[in-house]
Amino acid sequence: MIKVGIYGATGYTGYELVKILLGHPQVELAFMTSETYQGQALSEVFPCGIEKRLVASGDADPSSVEAIFTCLPHTTAMELIAKVYRTGLKVIDLSADFRFTSPADYQRWYDVEHLAPELLGKSAYGLCELFRDEIKACDIVGNPGCYPTGTLLALAPAVRAGLLALDEVIVDAKTGISGAGRKSDLTTQFVEVNENLIPYKIGRVHRHVGEMEGILTRLAGREVKVVFTPQLAPLSRGILFTIYISAAVKPGKDTRETAEEIRSIYEKAYRSEPFVRVLERGKPAQLGYVERSNACVIGVHEAAHTSFTVITAAIDNLIKGGAGQAVQNFNILFGLDETTGLAASSPRI
Amino acid sequence: MIKVGIYGATGYTGYELVKILLGHPQVELAFMTSETYQGQALSEVFPCGIEKRLVASGDADPSSVEAIFTCLPHTTAMELIAKVYRTGLKVIDLSADFRFTSPADYQRWYDVEHLAPELLGKSAYGLCELFRDEIKACDIVGNPGCYPTGTLLALAPAVRAGLLALDEVIVDAKTGISGAGRKSDLTTQFVEVNENLIPYKIGRVHRHVGEMEGILTRLAGREVKVVFTPQLAPLSRGILFTIYISAAVKPGKDTRETAEEIRSIYEKAYRSEPFVRVLERGKPAQLGYVERSNACVIGVHEAAHTSFTVITAAIDNLIKGGAGQAVQNFNILFGLDETTGLAASSPRI
Amino acid sequence: MIKVGIYGATGYTGYELVKILLGHPQVELAFMTSETYQGQALSEVFPCGIEKRLVASGDADPSSVEAIFTCLPHTTAMELIAKVYRTGLKVIDLSADFRFTSPADYQRWYDVEHLAPELLGKSAYGLCELFRDEIKACDIVGNPGCYPTGTLLALAPAVRAGLLALDEVIVDAKTGISGAGRKSDLTTQFVEVNENLIPYKIGRVHRHVGEMEGILTRLAGREVKVVFTPQLAPLSRGILFTIYISAAVKPGKDTRETAEEIRSIYEKAYRSEPFVRVLERGKPAQLGYVERSNACVIGVHEAAHTSFTVITAAIDNLIKGGAGQAVQNFNILFGLDETTGLAASSPRI
Amino acid sequence: MIKVGIYGATGYTGYELVKILLGHPQVELAFMTSETYQGQALSEVFPCGIEKRLVASGDADPSSVEAIFTCLPHTTAMELIAKVYRTGLKVIDLSADFRFTSPADYQRWYDVEHLAPELLGKSAYGLCELFRDEIKACDIVGNPGCYPTGTLLALAPAVRAGLLALDEVIVDAKTGISGAGRKSDLTTQFVEVNENLIPYKIGRVHRHVGEMEGILTRLAGREVKVVFTPQLAPLSRGILFTIYISAAVKPGKDTRETAEEIRSIYEKAYRSEPFVRVLERGKPAQLGYVERSNACVIGVHEAAHTSFTVITAAIDNLIKGGAGQAVQNFNILFGLDETTGLAASSPRI
Repeated sequence: MIKVGIYGATGYTGYELVKILLGHPQVELAFMTSETYQGQALSEVFPCGIEKRLVASGDADPSSVEAIFTCLPHTTAMELIAKVYRTGLKVIDLSADFRFTSPADYQRWYDVEHLAPELLGKSAYGLCELFRDEIKACDIVGNPGCYPTGTLLALAPAVRAGLLALDEVIVDAKTGISGAGRKSDLTTQFVEVNENLIPYKIGRVHRHVGEMEGILTRLAGREVKVVFTPQLAPLSRGILFTIYISAAVKPGKDTRETAEEIRSIYEKAYRSEPFVRVLERGKPAQLGYVERSNACVIGVHEAAHTSFTVITAAIDNLIKGGAGQAVQNFNILFGLDETTGLAASSPRI
Repeated sequence: MIKVGIYGATGYTGYELVKILLGHPQVELAFMTSETYQGQALSEVFPCGIEKRLVASGDADPSSVEAIFTCLPHTTAMELIAKVYRTGLKVIDLSADFRFTSPADYQRWYDVEHLAPELLGKSAYGLCELFRDEIKACDIVGNPGCYPTGTLLALAPAVRAGLLALDEVIVDAKTGISGAGRKSDLTTQFVEVNENLIPYKIGRVHRHVGEMEGILTRLAGREVKVVFTPQLAPLSRGILFTIYISAAVKPGKDTRETAEEIRSIYEKAYRSEPFVRVLERGKPAQLGYVERSNACVIGVHEAAHTSFTVITAAIDNLIKGGAGQAVQNFNILFGLDETTGLAASSPRI
Repeated sequence: MIKVGIYGATGYTGYELVKILLGHPQVELAFMTSETYQGQALSEVFPCGIEKRLVASGDADPSSVEAIFTCLPHTTAMELIAKVYRTGLKVIDLSADFRFTSPADYQRWYDVEHLAPELLGKSAYGLCELFRDEIKACDIVGNPGCYPTGTLLALAPAVRAGLLALDEVIVDAKTGISGAGRKSDLTTQFVEVNENLIPYKIGRVHRHVGEMEGILTRLAGREVKVVFTPQLAPLSRGILFTIYISAAVKPGKDTRETAEEIRSIYEKAYRSEPFVRVLERGKPAQLGYVERSNACVIGVHEAAHTSFTVITAAIDNLIKGGAGQAVQNFNILFGLDETTGLAASSPRI
Repeated sequence: MIKVGIYGATGYTGYELVKILLGHPQVELAFMTSETYQGQALSEVFPCGIEKRLVASGDADPSSVEAIFTCLPHTTAMELIAKVYRTGLKVIDLSADFRFTSPADYQRWYDVEHLAPELLGKSAYGLCELFRDEIKACDIVGNPGCYPTGTLLALAPAVRAGLLALDEVIVDAKTGISGAGRKSDLTTQFVEVNENLIPYKIGRVHRHVGEMEGILTRLAGREVKVVFTPQLAPLSRGILFTIYISAAVKPGKDTRETAEEIRSIYEKAYRSEPFVRVLERGKPAQLGYVERSNACVIGVHEAAHTSFTVITAAIDNLIKGGAGQAVQNFNILFGLDETTGLAASSPRI
C-alpha cells in the first residue's frame, strides 16, 4: 500500500479525489486537510458516509507519506509544496502552479510571481495521454485544468499530424456549475443559473487559454491561438466541447473525406488509450458518455463544402478534468496500471 | 377588434400564441383548432385557466376571420392554407412551408414538393427587423424558424455592411427542450436530457441551414455558408447563439478595434428596434435577458490578435423564435404598433 | 396615478414587485432603494431592460409618495416604518414585522423585541381573501409569509366551517429555491440543491409555524397546531402544499363523501375570488397552474376508509406568496379593482 | 463464478442492474434480453461503453444459468417465469408479480388473474432487512416496489414495536422522474416536469398502497392503512419520504421524548444493517445521502406538543428501490456477503 495525503479535501475536486482514493486498491489515505472544517468528519461536510476526520494543514505529517495531492488555490499550492517538498516525495498538484514550464508564462496569466521556480524543472504537465514519459520521470505533476484537458485531447492528433491550415482554433465549451468551485457566490446560486446559459470571459481572456495555447504551440512547433468561449450550463458536472478547425489532409480534398480521414487519424492515435474513445462516424460526443467516469469521448464531423471540420468532445470536469486524471498521474508515477481505481466509462442512466 | 383564428393550438408555440393573442388589445380570437384535443377546453390540455374550447380544423370557419395563424407541421400547413386562402385574408404560417421563395429550395431541404407554388409569390419571409417592407405588402408571412431568427439578427448588420472576410460563418447554438416540440418522444424524456448536453445534426445538415444560408446569401449578394451545431441543453426555453465570423472592417486593423467598430455598426443598425438590444462592450448575451419576451439581445466580442470576432445572441425560442414574432408580423400586416401585445424585455428572476 | 416607493428592490421579491408595479396602470414608481446597489440601474443587477436607478434608502423621499412597500429584513423593516410613518401614508410591509397582532407573539417567534408596538394597532394581516375588510380599514399591512399564504388559503374554509376533528394539521410543503432569498450562500448553490430534495426545520420549529397557528387559532376559535415540514426542491419558484387533515362533515360519513362535501364547501367559499381556484374532483394542484401568476389552486382528495382528507395547493412563492399579494393589498387599500396589474392564471408552458 | 441472465435489460432498472452485475466479482452475465433492441450492443441504447449484445428473449438459454433477474412488465414477468422455472433456478423478479402471497390480493390491485399461483408458495417478499430468513429459503424473490421499500424500512421498527397509536400512516413521497420508467410519454417530457411538482394518485389508489398495507398489516398483526401521496419532482433519481405517524412510546409522554425514544428503537433495529443508516438527532434524510448507492437513510423528528412524529427517509429508486436490492437478494440467495458489488453510501457531489 502506498501512503498518500490530500491537502484541501473539501472542494468539489478534493472530495471527488477522496472518494476515488478510498476505492483505490493500492492506496492508504493517511490524512486529508481542511482549514475551514478541521476536526470534522467528512460526513459533516458532504452527505456521505465517510467518517474519516479532516485535519488542519499544519497538523498533517507529509513526511509520513510517499505522495501528496494538493487541491488548493493557486499560490497557496506552490507555497505549501515548496515547504514540504523533499527528494522521494511525489506531488500531484491540481492548482495552476505547475502547469507552465516558464515562470514568466505563469506570471503573465496568473498575475503573480512564481514562488518556487527551482521546482519547475522537476515538474511535468500531467496530460497523461500526451506526456506519459515526461510524467514518469518527474517529481511534481501539474495536473491540467478542466478546459485544457478536453481541448487538448480533442486537438492533439490533428495538431501533431500537421493538419491545421489556419493556426487559430475555436473552442466553444459548456460547463456544469461545479466547475466554478464550491463556494458562497451569488452568481452560482440555483436561481441565477437555472433556466439560463451564461457565456463569460470570451476570446483570449480566460486563464486556461494560456495553458491551452502553450501546449498546442509546443505540439505544433509553431504558434497556435485559441478563440475560447466558456459558458455555464444548468447542470452539476461535465464539459461539452464543440471545436472548429480549418484542417486539410490534402489540398483540394472534399471536406467529408477530410473529416473521415481526420477521424481515422484520431482512432489510430487513441487506439490503445483506455480512457479516450473516438466515436463512430456521425455520432457526436455528449455528457452522458462520460459522466462520473475518467473517460473522454471525441467525435469528428464534416461541414460539407466548407473549410471547417467540427470536433466534439466530452469529459467529466471533476474526474478526467480533475481528480480522476490526478489519480491516473499517480498511477503513472508509481508504475501501476494506469486504470487502477478509475472508471473508463460512465454509469450514466 | 380584428378577428383571428389559430390552426394548431396545442403545441408549445401554438399555446404561447393563444396566450399572447388573448392579451392583445386589438384581437378577438374566434377559434383555435386541435385534432387531438377537439372538444376539450384548453385548460384540460395545459395547466392554465383558459376555458375556451378547441375545435376540429374542419369545424373552424376561416371565412369569419381576417387573419389566421397556422401552427401545423410542414406540408399540412400549405395544404390547409391552399384550401382556405382568399383575397383579403392574411396568413401567418409558423411552419417552414412559406420560408423559401423558390419551390426547388423548399423541396431540396424538406424533401417534398411544394403544394402551393402559386402562393409563394404572395408571401414574404417574416423576419420583421430585416424585411418589414416586404411583409407589409404581402398576404402570407413565412414566420422564420427559431434558429434562423437569432442567427440572422446576429449576422445581418455585419453581412449587409460587407464585413465578412470569409463567406463561412460558424453558428454554435444551444436550445431549450421546448424547441423539440410537444410530443411523446424518448429522446426528450426528462431523464435523457437532464444533466446532459447533446449536439445533433452537426455541419450543414439541419433544415434550418437552408433557411439561414438562403437569407444570408441574399443579404450578402454572394454565397454564404453556415457551419451549424445545434445542441440540446437541460432547460425549457431559450436559445443561446455563439457565432464566430472572420470579419474585417479595414485590412490590418487590430481585432479589438474591429470588434468595437462592429459593435457600433450593430448599435446603429438596431438603434430604433424595440425588440433588439445590442449589449454594452464586454457583456455577453445570456438567456436571462430574453426569457418570456420577444427580445433578442446581441453581444459583440473581440478575440484579440486572431481573425475572428465572436457574436453572442439570445432569444426565447417560443416567442421571438415563434409565437411572438408571429404576432409582430400580424401587427405589421395590420398597421398596428409593432410592439402591441408583446413584451420587449424579460420578466426573468 | 398613485405615487409609490419600494424599500429594498433587489431581492427576488423586491424585483418581482418592481416588475408588477411598472406594469400597474394606476401606479407611478417614484423610487426604489438598495444599499448594496445604490446608484446603479436595475438592469445592472438583473438581466432586465429596466434602466431606472436604485437610490440609497436615505436618499428616498417618503413624503413624496402615498404608499410604500418595504421588502427589507425583519427588524430593519419596522425601524424604517417607525421612522417614515405619517398619517395618510399606506404601508405594505413584506417582512414579518407586522404579521402578529401581539408584540409578545412576535418576540416569541422572532426573538427580538417589537420596536413599534404602537403601530401594531394600525395594522392588519394581509391575507386578502380572508381579511379584506380589516385590510381596507388599516394603514399598515403585514403581508403574509409564503408558506402561511398557501397553507391558510388551503385550510381556512374547513377550519371556519368547524370540520376539524383533530386540531392538529399536517402541512408538507415543497418550495423552489428562490424562497431562500437572493444571497451568497453555500446551501443554495446550484450543485448543492440540484438532484436533491432537502427537508429542514421539521415539526413546529420554522418561524412561519407561529404565523400559521396564530391565524388558524383565530379562525377556529380554539387552538390549532401545525405539524410543518418545509422542503427545498430543485426549481426556481413555486410552493406545492400537501396537507392532511382529520375532518368530519358528519360523524359516520364515508370519507369519500366527506372529501366531496369538503370540496363543495371550498368551491362555495372561493366562488367569487378571482385568484383562488378550487380544482375539479380528482385533480391535484401542481405548480404549473400558478407559476408566474397571483393564483392559488386547491384540490381536495379522499383517502378512502381513513380518517384523513388530503388537500393539495399551489402558489408562486414570489407572487401570491410575496409581491403579487402585496399589490393585491395595495389595490384593496386604494379601493381599486383587486386584480389590477395582476395575472390570475399562469402563463405556464 | 455464478452465471446469471437478465430478462429486460433496457429499462432504467434493467440497465442499472447490468452495470451492478458487471461489477460484481462473483457473477458472470450470460445473457441480457430486449425485444425492442435485440441484436444491438447496449452501447447503442445507452451512452455507455458496454459492447455486450442484447438478445431476444427467445434466444436466451435459461438452462445455462443459475439465476435470472426479470425486469419485465407485470404479467409478462410471471408468464416468462412460469415457462423457465425449474428446480435449482433462482429467480429475482423486479415486477409486481411475486410481491403478494395471495393471488386474490394480486388480482385486487393489478386487475389481472395470477398466472402461476402454484409458484407463489416458493416465493418470498424481498425486502432484505425485514425478511432475510424467508428469502434465504425461497426460490423466487418478489423484489419490492420503490415506494414500498423506503416506506417499509421507515416504518417497520415502529410498527414491530407496537408504537402506532393510530393504525393509519401518512406517506408523502417525492420521486425523481426515472420512477416513471423509460418510455415515450408526454407527461414525463422535460418541459412538462421541469419547474413543476406534480402529485398523482392521491389517497389509497396507487398500486403500491396494496403492497405497503399488506406488509405493514403483517408486521403489526392488525390492519394498518396508508394515506399515500406520490409526487413527481424535477430530478432524475431518488425518492424522499416524509412520513407522519401518531405514535406513543408511553401514554402521557412529551412528544420530543417520544421522538428520541423512537429514534433509539430505530438505531437499535438497524445497528448491524450495512445499508440502513439512522441519522443523528435533528438531521433529516435528503437524497444527497443515498444517490447512486444501495443505502437507505432515516431521520426521526419531533413535532412538539402534537400527537405526531415525523420520519424522513431517502433511497435511490433505481438501486435500493430496484436493481441494488435485487442484487442484495441475489447475494442472500447464494450465501454471499450481502454487500458484494453494492455501494453502501452515496458518491454524491
